[in-house]
Amino acid sequence: MAVKSAGLPSIKTQNLPVSVKEEEKIVGIHFFGNMYEIDPAVATNKEFLEKVVLKAVDIAKMHLVERKAWAFGGKKGGVSVIALVTESHVALHTWNEYKYATLDIYTCGSDSDPKAAFDFVVENLKPKRHQIFYADRSM
Amino acid sequence: MAVKSAGLPSIKTQNLPVSVKEEEKIVGIHFFGNMYEIDPAVATNKEFLEKVVLKAVDIAKMHLVERKAWAFGGKKGGVSVIALVTESHVALHTWNEYKYATLDIYTCGSDSDPKAAFDFVVENLKPKRHQIFYADRSM
Repeated sequence: MAVKSAGLPSIKTQNLPVSVKEEEKIVGIHFFGNMYEIDPAVATNKEFLEKVVLKAVDIAKMHLVERKAWAFGGKKGGVSVIALVTESHVALHTWNEYKYATLDIYTCGSDSDPKAAFDFVVENLKPKRHQIFYADRSM
Repeated sequence: MAVKSAGLPSIKTQNLPVSVKEEEKIVGIHFFGNMYEIDPAVATNKEFLEKVVLKAVDIAKMHLVERKAWAFGGKKGGVSVIALVTESHVALHTWNEYKYATLDIYTCGSDSDPKAAFDFVVENLKPKRHQIFYADRSM
């Protein structure tokens, strides 16, 4: 399995028996990370963030089932966008007062490219710095 | 911050400056893991899984905004339950043919107890074995 981990910190949850064929197992790839110093005008823009997530779903070659976005007020308020895809889910949370956001792109199936989707979100949210981690969710 | 990591593998995403007070930052705690050899009758029971997630939200002292459950057919079918909480999200995915499930419990705020919620889901899904990992999503 050619996991697109790009040399990131990885948590290997289980080694598969060698005899198991690629198409017979669940290939789960979960990229998650944090974005710092995002423009609050971006971090509060629910419509924009929803569009970014939807485009990221396309870029990752995931198949959208349903998505929803929510805006929260208050000191720790921000926006949440969650997309349920047939391959698992995408979740973006922002905290505008803290100019902070977290992103999870979790796909199952060897055809999707969650790393490209992660990069796309970062390019659009334009944090001054960000971190990305990788977890293998395969069985 | 007393993170309830219970000695699990941790990815520390950032060290906070010592001068930052607890209430002034975003405390993000993300437990995620995999469950193996679940009874397919459980893994396909959308209503039951939805109830388990809702109860887990309560146990973690999270505040539910909205939740939804989906059932998928086919060889890699199963159930997905996603709960958007003010503290972040909970996502459960099952693959009944593989008797497999993954769980993410991601909360922000130092008052919640995502580990108790994770344990509750495991107790109810009764996998023959499971793994749990921890990621610090704090800023």
